[in-house]
Amino acid sequence: MIKANDPSLHSWIEIDPESDFPIQNLPFGVFQTADRDPRVGVAIGEYILDLCELGSRGFFELIDFDPNVFHRPSLNDFLAYGKPVWRAVRNRVSDLLRNDNDEICGDSDLIRKCLVLQQAAQMLLPVKVRNYTDFYSSLEHATNVGTMFRDPKQALLPNWKHLPVGYHGRASSIVVSGTPIHRPKGQIKAPDMDVPVFGPTRQLDFELEVAFITGKETQLGQSIPPHEAEEYIFGLVLFNDWSARDIQSWEYVPLGPFLGKSFASSISPWVVTLDALAPLKVKGPVQDPKPLPYLQFLGHHNYDIQLEVLLQPENRPATSVCRSNYKYLYWNMHQQLAHQSSNGCNIQVGDLYASGTISGADKGSYGSMLELTWRGTQPLQLADGSERSFVEDFDTVIMRGYGQHHGIRIGFGEVRSRVLPAV
Amino acid sequence: MIKANDPSLHSWIEIDPESDFPIQNLPFGVFQTADRDPRVGVAIGEYILDLCELGSRGFFELIDFDPNVFHRPSLNDFLAYGKPVWRAVRNRVSDLLRNDNDEICGDSDLIRKCLVLQQAAQMLLPVKVRNYTDFYSSLEHATNVGTMFRDPKQALLPNWKHLPVGYHGRASSIVVSGTPIHRPKGQIKAPDMDVPVFGPTRQLDFELEVAFITGKETQLGQSIPPHEAEEYIFGLVLFNDWSARDIQSWEYVPLGPFLGKSFASSISPWVVTLDALAPLKVKGPVQDPKPLPYLQFLGHHNYDIQLEVLLQPENRPATSVCRSNYKYLYWNMHQQLAHQSSNGCNIQVGDLYASGTISGADKGSYGSMLELTWRGTQPLQLADGSERSFVEDFDTVIMRGYGQHHGIRIGFGEVRSRVLPAV
Repeated sequence: MIKANDPSLHSWIEIDPESDFPIQNLPFGVFQTADRDPRVGVAIGEYILDLCELGSRGFFELIDFDPNVFHRPSLNDFLAYGKPVWRAVRNRVSDLLRNDNDEICGDSDLIRKCLVLQQAAQMLLPVKVRNYTDFYSSLEHATNVGTMFRDPKQALLPNWKHLPVGYHGRASSIVVSGTPIHRPKGQIKAPDMDVPVFGPTRQLDFELEVAFITGKETQLGQSIPPHEAEEYIFGLVLFNDWSARDIQSWEYVPLGPFLGKSFASSISPWVVTLDALAPLKVKGPVQDPKPLPYLQFLGHHNYDIQLEVLLQPENRPATSVCRSNYKYLYWNMHQQLAHQSSNGCNIQVGDLYASGTISGADKGSYGSMLELTWRGTQPLQLADGSERSFVEDFDTVIMRGYGQHHGIRIGFGEVRSRVLPAV
Repeated sequence: MIKANDPSLHSWIEIDPESDFPIQNLPFGVFQTADRDPRVGVAIGEYILDLCELGSRGFFELIDFDPNVFHRPSLNDFLAYGKPVWRAVRNRVSDLLRNDNDEICGDSDLIRKCLVLQQAAQMLLPVKVRNYTDFYSSLEHATNVGTMFRDPKQALLPNWKHLPVGYHGRASSIVVSGTPIHRPKGQIKAPDMDVPVFGPTRQLDFELEVAFITGKETQLGQSIPPHEAEEYIFGLVLFNDWSARDIQSWEYVPLGPFLGKSFASSISPWVVTLDALAPLKVKGPVQDPKPLPYLQFLGHHNYDIQLEVLLQPENRPATSVCRSNYKYLYWNMHQQLAHQSSNGCNIQVGDLYASGTISGADKGSYGSMLELTWRGTQPLQLADGSERSFVEDFDTVIMRGYGQHHGIRIGFGEVRSRVLPAV
């Protein structure tokens, strides 16, 4: 076991047992405050540990890297050092926060300098996203969409069980939790219209996804076998793949989703490391037919991460509208990365690979309004008595996720976004 | 008229009348030599003018920018200054190279320091590509593909004449002319096969395209009307959108092209500015139906740029296999950028927007092997007596482009790539 994952560890910081951020998690993010410029930190309970402060005081001097990479507005320069450094830093942070270590906790001035309340900080986009791919790896989601838009008897297209279908998305419009989303405008042509019109989408939707971030590059022409994928993956975030269904359905033939997606995607600010998630590994769904050799893997590479989506109308209570789980994914992230690089496409530091909408078998586990309301035909009832077919202006969409092992909760925090009217 | 475009200008450098790079062109690129680290230069005849050297000697001191941006491995920092600086620098370079100016040509030591033979330099990727979109804006290409793969009677899909169809491509694998291309591997399932196999593509193809590069950003939520597009566009390059047709045809439903494209795209090293191309403006095809207001424009925004593709087997003469023209495009770049940003998607400095394959009405003007050989059914005869259905190992594909006004040739140079066997 990775030593920082030991369930018996305790910190000198008091941490609520319901917190997403116990000492066994230690996710990385980028933050700023009124008197701290953008820098890297680690979440611990209600606090952020300021790695930039610690680095400048020599706390990482036994690790072979330049701690100035923590004084940056993104994790990219830190990620470029690779897994041995990621792991050494996490282990060192774990040591510094343990209740039997007094390097920080014995110095009240130092505590003040290197601990920041999360409430007092603004979280920034954790990585400068270089390339973004969106997969389509949930069997249940692909089946639901195929049933609605094509043929219920042949809902899955012939390629779906042979390869992790995916497409390139827009990197520039990926934003961090808390960034308001303007309702996008676009061309819309409903089936009963003769010609398209241009205007605000009438079918704004979320998609519940999890994304992984790479921290190691390959050269053009090089491929990554599934058993090496873990060396490339730094960690995971929650991912809301905003979608405008009416724009998408008119534009997407024959080259795929474009403006129906590229107006925004939202991610959670804390990147939970693959190391912290290791205890949550579970077996994935049986894959039949057996994948081609370049997609075959040993061991378990699905993760038991409970996911939830809440919809909150303006000044009203939130309603939980979806409970799903990352473990439902048919294609795991090792296979996704192996497929992405199988043609020699080069991987970069800061790439983001999203899972596709994660739906389960039951209706309550569907990961989009499209599925939850079956294309708007079965509106959802919210706690305040209102109904929703799609997301409305001034609604806030909240996604949360966490896994548990030996009573220890490894959480993602949340990605939360409020929808504003079209500009 | 922009003064640097005056056809009566002459340089103190002797320039072949057939050169792509007369004093009226002055395209920007990034180069290095044995004793010069990566830096920005301008092509003039057979030479490169080293802007980094000129900047360090104060030759741009009347322009409000930091000339250290020329001492960079990409144009991005220069581009971020915007059109007034791009134009002022080009005008200043034009002045310095005029035959009635002796600031450089009067100093033989300075000439040696700031002029480099192109033959002695290695050209690098001119921009760090932030986001890459590939449009599909040639009516003839879309019609040919629709006829081959779908229904000759309904070759164009219903959306095609209403919006510039496009999709997001992979930015990481865009490489500069001269970079060898390894034949990609991938899943292939021919119609007569029961299950897919994994192996090298049997249908490697080029696509003749032109791409524009943006040098001004927008904020998320902001849209660019067509009449403002020119403020955002720095210049154009030739673009070879390599494609593996068998990988593409199996993977592309329902989310569009992915690994059949992402193994590589090649661009020419010199970015020809929109200012230099201004005299080549021509009227585009009539658009019927009339586009929606957000896609309407005044004036002419197509460009008369003659394009050519040559195919050269190993150690054999090259054969010209396609002659087309950028002016054939149905949707112009102003409309492409307006459409891309119409949903509020933010534009970044260093984005690349490719036109899609540029085919004309005649068979000799088709911009891909797919069309030229009609899906491999009508192989091309090459000058050495060999035949080609698609591109073979050790073939070199060369694309060239230029326009002419008042006898002045505004050229792009070439994008040239040799195909190597699968790794």
